[in-house]
Amino acid sequence: MEKIIVVGAGLCGTLLALRMAQRGYQVVVYERRPDQRKSDFVGGRSINLALSNRGLRSLEMVGIKDEILKDCIPMHGRMIHSLSGESWHSPYSGRKQDYINSVSREELNMSLLEAADKFDNLTVHFEVKFQKVDIEQAHIEFVDKDGNHKSDKAAIVIGTDGAGSVVRKSLMGQTTKLLFNYSQDFLSHGYKELSIEPGEAGAFKIEKNALHIWPRGKFMIIALPNLDGSFTVTMFHPYEGEYGFNTMVSDEDIVDCFEKQYPGLIKYMPNYLNEYKQNPVGTLGTIRCYPWQAYGKTLVMGDASHAIVPFYGQGMNAAFEDVFVFDEVLNEYEGDWSKVFTAFQDRRKADADAIADLAVDNFYEMRDHVDDLAFKEKRKLEMNLEQEFENYYSKYSMVTFKEELSYFDAKKKGRKQDELLLELCKANRHKELSLQEINSKVNQLNS
Amino acid sequence: MEKIIVVGAGLCGTLLALRMAQRGYQVVVYERRPDQRKSDFVGGRSINLALSNRGLRSLEMVGIKDEILKDCIPMHGRMIHSLSGESWHSPYSGRKQDYINSVSREELNMSLLEAADKFDNLTVHFEVKFQKVDIEQAHIEFVDKDGNHKSDKAAIVIGTDGAGSVVRKSLMGQTTKLLFNYSQDFLSHGYKELSIEPGEAGAFKIEKNALHIWPRGKFMIIALPNLDGSFTVTMFHPYEGEYGFNTMVSDEDIVDCFEKQYPGLIKYMPNYLNEYKQNPVGTLGTIRCYPWQAYGKTLVMGDASHAIVPFYGQGMNAAFEDVFVFDEVLNEYEGDWSKVFTAFQDRRKADADAIADLAVDNFYEMRDHVDDLAFKEKRKLEMNLEQEFENYYSKYSMVTFKEELSYFDAKKKGRKQDELLLELCKANRHKELSLQEINSKVNQLNS
Repeated sequence: MEKIIVVGAGLCGTLLALRMAQRGYQVVVYERRPDQRKSDFVGGRSINLALSNRGLRSLEMVGIKDEILKDCIPMHGRMIHSLSGESWHSPYSGRKQDYINSVSREELNMSLLEAADKFDNLTVHFEVKFQKVDIEQAHIEFVDKDGNHKSDKAAIVIGTDGAGSVVRKSLMGQTTKLLFNYSQDFLSHGYKELSIEPGEAGAFKIEKNALHIWPRGKFMIIALPNLDGSFTVTMFHPYEGEYGFNTMVSDEDIVDCFEKQYPGLIKYMPNYLNEYKQNPVGTLGTIRCYPWQAYGKTLVMGDASHAIVPFYGQGMNAAFEDVFVFDEVLNEYEGDWSKVFTAFQDRRKADADAIADLAVDNFYEMRDHVDDLAFKEKRKLEMNLEQEFENYYSKYSMVTFKEELSYFDAKKKGRKQDELLLELCKANRHKELSLQEINSKVNQLNS
Repeated sequence: MEKIIVVGAGLCGTLLALRMAQRGYQVVVYERRPDQRKSDFVGGRSINLALSNRGLRSLEMVGIKDEILKDCIPMHGRMIHSLSGESWHSPYSGRKQDYINSVSREELNMSLLEAADKFDNLTVHFEVKFQKVDIEQAHIEFVDKDGNHKSDKAAIVIGTDGAGSVVRKSLMGQTTKLLFNYSQDFLSHGYKELSIEPGEAGAFKIEKNALHIWPRGKFMIIALPNLDGSFTVTMFHPYEGEYGFNTMVSDEDIVDCFEKQYPGLIKYMPNYLNEYKQNPVGTLGTIRCYPWQAYGKTLVMGDASHAIVPFYGQGMNAAFEDVFVFDEVLNEYEGDWSKVFTAFQDRRKADADAIADLAVDNFYEMRDHVDDLAFKEKRKLEMNLEQEFENYYSKYSMVTFKEELSYFDAKKKGRKQDELLLELCKANRHKELSLQEINSKVNQLNS
């Protein structure tokens, strides 16, 4: 069977490699970082992700969904913490079976690598420094971990090497020839990770089964639960202006921010000042490009072709869905890589753009609107609609729990529906109408 | 007085250098290409530009407007050539004094360099290969035309080095630190230049004082007059599909295209087949970025910060207007480069984005709609309105002839107005209403 090279053994690359190995290809994966399973992995702080239906469908495809779910913590809704100290739970869906799953990036990546190890036709090389990708020849040059200059060649190269993708940069190197469209857009906010330590005997100090938000209008903090009872806490603040990462310089500035804005949170984080000072600020950006393929020889997938901001919890799910769609396309066109690549990018580009837009929208919703009266009323109404009508899905539910609907359609339908419901709630008309009448209005929108 | 380095002695860079020399700065300009005035410049084919009010205002600022206008050919409107062989003239404005000017890029650039030569505090170095721009230190490294490695340092560096700007790439090299937003977007069409040779004794074979268009729906050809009686002819065709640059391979394909699509034109171009085969295809792209400055030390201007497609004839005019706005900003903040740069980009970014959008719009208008019945009616109506009412400006006139209105406002007002008038014409209601009534409706839109 044909040989394929995968560049990057992150979440998307490893899942892709696994699926391609299952399909019988000879798969060689090259990864810049060391093997996390062999390096001294120190527990504690970890990046958390929210695994939901689209990602789960792809894990099911390769047969490891149930195994992965064992390492997840269900989150049934948002726990919102107001400045005055109140908190309330806003479910993600009116349907009990619809929830998202907090999972550690490292754990998940290691599980995927374990699953990949079982295939004789799949090899992963770690600690490889890329020198050059010849996108026309599917030929790569690199320095291996012992410092030897090497090269490899295959039928195709697929770049799953994330937002900073070297494979995408090689496509961009042929801008004029490929008419390569590209954009990078940063939010004026960055993020910083902090943590809530586990309580005694691994107890959760705040509600375990929720995604916590401390929305403060122009900025916010969120927290996701970890298996050991800790929470990964992420601050999303602007770089400049009031409480900006660049403007909070002294200890006093930082303490003042937390005491004034997050008084209810810091009692769980005695060490927040040190963590704040030690941990770096990360940027939040959206990357788009097109074409995703060149010459039927090179393709980019996942964050390498569509990196998004994290506010819909869909970055990983979208990357996993890429693998699902790629598998579907292979079922149709296997044997002709040009057709496979072209069909893949045609089918997937609009969806990648849609989830990128939705993720930016959700940033404004989370930091700001979740605390609005009309917004809260709308969420309540949506819960009632979801409980009452099998065919009703909120925008959030369409994106998160309705994997058979594309991101593109979810965005289009979801935005129209949001507009209608928010208008009703703002005008207080939702109380005059029956749920049945409101659901009819929604159905009319979509017909 | 302070020293400033300008990278690129094209149209924008030379005008900027000239203005800065007039303001008393010590200006050093570095240019990659040879001095056009000393190289064997072969007449004949040349890229033509349409110089209009915004550009002229900037030339007036440096005192060379009248001199430049001597080398221009006024174009009072579009001469549209239909497939069936008819042609008609569509004026750019209902006001006689409003027209655009066909000018050769080379001639204009040389005139600017001549004007620059008169200043002792302005030096231009040609044939310089850039190695590195240190955007934090305003320090550049380069190889001069004799092969010597050199460097230079100044208070500031301004990059006016066009769409492929090395200065912009240096800003992009600090993507994370600067939160550098960037996009490049290509049309699926390219362009190729051909020519109509002058007639006997420099006679113009087709109407001299017009911009000619052969609109064909999915593609088009345009022609602009040169002083020597020739016309620069530009084909805008898709790369792929029917009559695409990549799909027309054999002589037969090319001849078939011209005979079927441009039968009235080829009688003036006996040599079109050879020209078609000899001349390259260029790409058509839009480049946007932000910020345009870093550290109050480095700034990009003109195409380097906002390259646009050529369909509004505003690329050069926008670049010249940059220099005008920069001069205004200097009047306010001279002495503090950080403030100057920040105020400049704040004031100018929305305008650069607006003209980029308008230029893409106009591509669709020129190749397609100029030949529509409703569109023609709307243009007639607009001419009448412009003749009748001093305060009425079509979108085209706002962009082209109303330099005191920003591109941003021209886009906003112009689009609304276009929508209204086109609706009236499509519904045939423009004949029921008086000009006065229609003008009132337009005024209501803008109030």
